[in-house]
Amino acid sequence: MYNLLKGKKGIIFGALDEKSIAWKVAERAHEEGATFVLTNAPVALRLGTITQLAEKTGAEVIPADATSIMDLEHLVDQAMEILGGKIDFVLHSIGMSVNVRRGNHYTHQDYNFTKTGWDVSALSFHRVMSVLYQKNAMNEWGSIIALTYMAAQRVFPDYNDMADNKAYLESVARSFGYFFGRDHKVRVNTISQSPTPTTAGSGVKGFDGFLSFADKMSPLGNATAAECADYTITLFSDLTKKVTLQNLFHDGGFSNMGISTAIMDDFMKVNKPVEENEDKKAKK
Amino acid sequence: MYNLLKGKKGIIFGALDEKSIAWKVAERAHEEGATFVLTNAPVALRLGTITQLAEKTGAEVIPADATSIMDLEHLVDQAMEILGGKIDFVLHSIGMSVNVRRGNHYTHQDYNFTKTGWDVSALSFHRVMSVLYQKNAMNEWGSIIALTYMAAQRVFPDYNDMADNKAYLESVARSFGYFFGRDHKVRVNTISQSPTPTTAGSGVKGFDGFLSFADKMSPLGNATAAECADYTITLFSDLTKKVTLQNLFHDGGFSNMGISTAIMDDFMKVNKPVEENEDKKAKK
Amino acid sequence: MYNLLKGKKGIIFGALDEKSIAWKVAERAHEEGATFVLTNAPVALRLGTITQLAEKTGAEVIPADATSIMDLEHLVDQAMEILGGKIDFVLHSIGMSVNVRRGNHYTHQDYNFTKTGWDVSALSFHRVMSVLYQKNAMNEWGSIIALTYMAAQRVFPDYNDMADNKAYLESVARSFGYFFGRDHKVRVNTISQSPTPTTAGSGVKGFDGFLSFADKMSPLGNATAAECADYTITLFSDLTKKVTLQNLFHDGGFSNMGISTAIMDDFMKVNKPVEENEDKKAKK
Amino acid sequence: MYNLLKGKKGIIFGALDEKSIAWKVAERAHEEGATFVLTNAPVALRLGTITQLAEKTGAEVIPADATSIMDLEHLVDQAMEILGGKIDFVLHSIGMSVNVRRGNHYTHQDYNFTKTGWDVSALSFHRVMSVLYQKNAMNEWGSIIALTYMAAQRVFPDYNDMADNKAYLESVARSFGYFFGRDHKVRVNTISQSPTPTTAGSGVKGFDGFLSFADKMSPLGNATAAECADYTITLFSDLTKKVTLQNLFHDGGFSNMGISTAIMDDFMKVNKPVEENEDKKAKK
Repeated sequence: MYNLLKGKKGIIFGALDEKSIAWKVAERAHEEGATFVLTNAPVALRLGTITQLAEKTGAEVIPADATSIMDLEHLVDQAMEILGGKIDFVLHSIGMSVNVRRGNHYTHQDYNFTKTGWDVSALSFHRVMSVLYQKNAMNEWGSIIALTYMAAQRVFPDYNDMADNKAYLESVARSFGYFFGRDHKVRVNTISQSPTPTTAGSGVKGFDGFLSFADKMSPLGNATAAECADYTITLFSDLTKKVTLQNLFHDGGFSNMGISTAIMDDFMKVNKPVEENEDKKAKK
Repeated sequence: MYNLLKGKKGIIFGALDEKSIAWKVAERAHEEGATFVLTNAPVALRLGTITQLAEKTGAEVIPADATSIMDLEHLVDQAMEILGGKIDFVLHSIGMSVNVRRGNHYTHQDYNFTKTGWDVSALSFHRVMSVLYQKNAMNEWGSIIALTYMAAQRVFPDYNDMADNKAYLESVARSFGYFFGRDHKVRVNTISQSPTPTTAGSGVKGFDGFLSFADKMSPLGNATAAECADYTITLFSDLTKKVTLQNLFHDGGFSNMGISTAIMDDFMKVNKPVEENEDKKAKK
Repeated sequence: MYNLLKGKKGIIFGALDEKSIAWKVAERAHEEGATFVLTNAPVALRLGTITQLAEKTGAEVIPADATSIMDLEHLVDQAMEILGGKIDFVLHSIGMSVNVRRGNHYTHQDYNFTKTGWDVSALSFHRVMSVLYQKNAMNEWGSIIALTYMAAQRVFPDYNDMADNKAYLESVARSFGYFFGRDHKVRVNTISQSPTPTTAGSGVKGFDGFLSFADKMSPLGNATAAECADYTITLFSDLTKKVTLQNLFHDGGFSNMGISTAIMDDFMKVNKPVEENEDKKAKK
Repeated sequence: MYNLLKGKKGIIFGALDEKSIAWKVAERAHEEGATFVLTNAPVALRLGTITQLAEKTGAEVIPADATSIMDLEHLVDQAMEILGGKIDFVLHSIGMSVNVRRGNHYTHQDYNFTKTGWDVSALSFHRVMSVLYQKNAMNEWGSIIALTYMAAQRVFPDYNDMADNKAYLESVARSFGYFFGRDHKVRVNTISQSPTPTTAGSGVKGFDGFLSFADKMSPLGNATAAECADYTITLFSDLTKKVTLQNLFHDGGFSNMGISTAIMDDFMKVNKPVEENEDKKAKK
């Protein structure tokens, strides 16, 4: 629409199906003139519908397990060969908690699952950047973004060990972002997105209710996956070159709300002031 | 109880009546071995019951309008004379919004009222510290505390212009705290307390409902005025000498909550998932 | 360049001369297809060179004292008439400390100056939004931005009472942003920019040294006024509709740095480790 | 000194030698009337001098590898038996990065080492709380504290992967703290301490220089291990019952500093303003 990414080359992780934020980012990046490769774990490639996206955007799909340095090295080599040069933007949209899938309570985790979730969801971001950094594969003023969630800062009980993984991920963005900025003029940020009804997100217990709660708390309502893609495009563009090490909330304002009138109104329907209840009783 | 403030001298602003946090702090400071003077604005002295507190704690009451440098200079001079030396601790518990009292909406303020509220609630803290600093009236390793509220960080719609005043107050704590620390080894912090049913707080529209909301959101429930007094004592004591420039949440955990199960349960009573409603309809 | 603001109408406060961030924003907004009015205080209009900017961008200049509701009402009415409809974007770039100008130390302020500085630098933002809100003068999904500085969060001793003013300003963004978002779908954010050698900024004591410090601390170096303009454009565009109530750091990463290797290297040139000094002495 | 912990029972992890913060906490807890068990990894028990501390404080030493649930279960069972009841306070002072020890750069980690460091430094805190929670081993209004460092929020290049581990640790404090608070009235906090010349800390590259930098940046100077122990005592006491989910900076004010005059003065010795240098050149 605006040619914001004209001539830019990218790697997009994590487009499972058309509900995925990464899917929307790929569509928008394509519209804005970028070329890119798509990648996901082999199992996700089988489960999802990424080939449709690949066709639509003229992108090649390169399988890569983000916990494997070898896979990532292959991915980056291939990406540079296919795209004909260094990379300008990278989206990391990878997250998975085995403890959530298996229904383990946060207080009683299987620590092997915890390790796997951390490895896939958080350490993978370090690996991706490490490979890009060692190979000197990013163009100057390139932009690397990972998606995260506010459970890294505040308690959302059902988010389970993903909260801790996201905290680690955001720290990696800062820590690695320093070296990537200093040495290669590359910026690294995380986008902390509203709860989003992706295929992954929807599986979480009580997700629909929480979606509604977040929407009523946020002055502008929840941000959608499509809106997140728009925002991501700005952060890949040349207009945000000096934004780095930041965790950027894209959430309709939720993150800075204490309470909204809408949430308070609902709360008061269930929690009548004492006097009022007494009063009603008396009338009977 | 512990002699934590044995031999320490203080000035306590803002004890209106026995519901006041400042009142509880005075009682606890007395129990812990401190001597102090009490102060409040002349009008508050008339409205409240501070003389009872003065008798109980052996403290003198010195009227002072916290917007008047002359009053504050007189207060500090008198305090040092009465207490026989420099000051070890100061509590600033002063806040008032004319816009709230008059029922002005946040978006449509009377800016004269806004100025008065800011002057009384926020700039007063600078004045108090300025007088103490110019007079070199604080002992080394003294402690200055102001009470604040989390509306300085996040939106609580009914808190009105007090939110902005508290943001200014907290900034003053940091800004002045630097100089007071560097030059006189005095620490300056703010305590961000749970909503508390003081005489002042209770007047705010919808306060009871919000009190209940905050209580259900906080894993340990709301912090009471008495508990705030306990916490304040630790920050006046010699055990916290290197804590400075901080805004310290004393709120049962509210500040780091995104949502609690209790709040979500209430929310779901009003906001049934779509399917469930559909299901019930079908059954009919 | 990208037509990001095609058809959008705006009001830009605070373009003094070509070094001003607001000046750069006006130039970029013009390039991106926006129309707008320029405004500043009458005295600033005389001191600066805004007519050059007005000619270059085809904008009219409407004098307005941001501490006067009447001036602001006139400004907004005129702007809507000139631009032919409601407003899509507003930039507030206003700040002034009389205490700084007069060389008063932070600890020893003239409180009349403090009030003036707060009124001009912080309360003015509330006034601007209040007039826009009462007049229902913003289009849905409009964007309001104020420029701020990190002294609102952390201590920069020479920033004086502007630190507290900026803290108030940022709070106003959140507080008003809630109502503007809920009621009119308008987003409100602040950009916390690197120290920038504008005419205003350069006057501050020790500014050049601090500029260099910030540059060496930031992995990407300081953000320039031109880069700030680019970033501002993205936040005025339709690609960031759900970003609100945020304070957005645009600073080359400074805000999340503890220390950089460059700063540490300089520090060690002055602060040799004890052993090394001893060692050198021994060798002599 | 104050009997603040009279009758309280605790578990203290991580006292290696007399420089350890945990060591100082144990000494102070003993002085304040607490009884406790000491624990550390078997290898640390051999390397350090913990038996001296045990004798001095009348504490038993129970070896436990904090990465082993079995060891931790044994530890908690033994502690309750030895101390004669449930636990009131726990200190987690455990941290170790193999990447740091081996000199691996942050950007080029050995991920097996990364996993080990995360497991020991961060996940261990979850394990400790999980065992205490499952066994219902904490008294109501008990207090659990872990030591952390500000590298979790901001970049300190030499802190390496410990930064990310501390971010995870702090997230665990919030996440688990919610459930521990809600279900057992136990509070969980982290103390973010000044850089401290412990045996562990001193090994880090450039530590002495950084210690000096932090000291000059902090208005009250660095907080010592002994001062950290004092602060920890207040957080174990009954005076801080409603403080939970917090990360508490104990750092002489460092965390809220942008720059201090002392640091700026040093910086200017190396970075003369351009004009001055030019001037000197001209004089030659």
